[in-house]
Amino acid sequence: MNLSMFTSQPIGFVRSPHKDTSQVPRGLGAKHDADGVLAILAEFELGLTDIEGFSHLVVLWEFDRASGFELLGKPPSDDRPHGVFATRSPRRPNPIGLTIVELLRREGNELHVRGVDMLDRTPILDIKPLLSGVPAEKLRRGWLAEAEARRG
Amino acid sequence: MNLSMFTSQPIGFVRSPHKDTSQVPRGLGAKHDADGVLAILAEFELGLTDIEGFSHLVVLWEFDRASGFELLGKPPSDDRPHGVFATRSPRRPNPIGLTIVELLRREGNELHVRGVDMLDRTPILDIKPLLSGVPAEKLRRGWLAEAEARRG
Repeated sequence: MNLSMFTSQPIGFVRSPHKDTSQVPRGLGAKHDADGVLAILAEFELGLTDIEGFSHLVVLWEFDRASGFELLGKPPSDDRPHGVFATRSPRRPNPIGLTIVELLRREGNELHVRGVDMLDRTPILDIKPLLSGVPAEKLRRGWLAEAEARRG
Repeated sequence: MNLSMFTSQPIGFVRSPHKDTSQVPRGLGAKHDADGVLAILAEFELGLTDIEGFSHLVVLWEFDRASGFELLGKPPSDDRPHGVFATRSPRRPNPIGLTIVELLRREGNELHVRGVDMLDRTPILDIKPLLSGVPAEKLRRGWLAEAEARRG
């Protein structure tokens, strides 16, 4: 087994209206409709070629202001603890965040997007096109659906 | 701007029937229905608590056998080059892969899943529950849809 460490470095940074975590909508039914910008470093701009054709992007980013991790924790959406891999908690063994955004337009090395839930200045690790979703009837949502049902 | 490097380390490894890249279905309409196992290291098993309730998981993993990156490249699905951030190419600035799998069952620290497109022994960085998909009518797929249309 390859137990070595892997390294990554920012390909760019998020410009977001959220200056601290208290401003990020969290928990059950949180709406993430804030507009922001994915500002990609000039050296990686060529990698954005043809990205305009996609309506939605998957953004991977670093929770650079989270510290440490918690294998079992209580998310804002529930009053019971859950395993970190069954939640979107920032306090993860590898603190990589994932956000699906809608691409509004591209201006050179800047992607104007809707749906940012990252803090301002968050380092971006990768961007991938979103190719499909899972049909709702095939999706189960575990404890979150249960927590919603309990709240009526 | 925080241009520092970030480090990550495996939380587990994939057991996959794909022993080398030639065995992984690639390109337009590739079906990923192979069964495999996400074997999580014992020290992180507590983080799997309640994961059984989710039908689909997002798996982040390291392309540990890719080398270097290419900002513009020709994917198997098209005969034209595209920016790396508009493709799923393994040759990315930060070689992090993303796969959505269906969770079949959990046995202790082992998640039996369907839909693996990773190579055997691929290091796993993170697992997150899949909470929703994007409705098909809201999704555009850029050059991929165009390439499909050209092929009729």
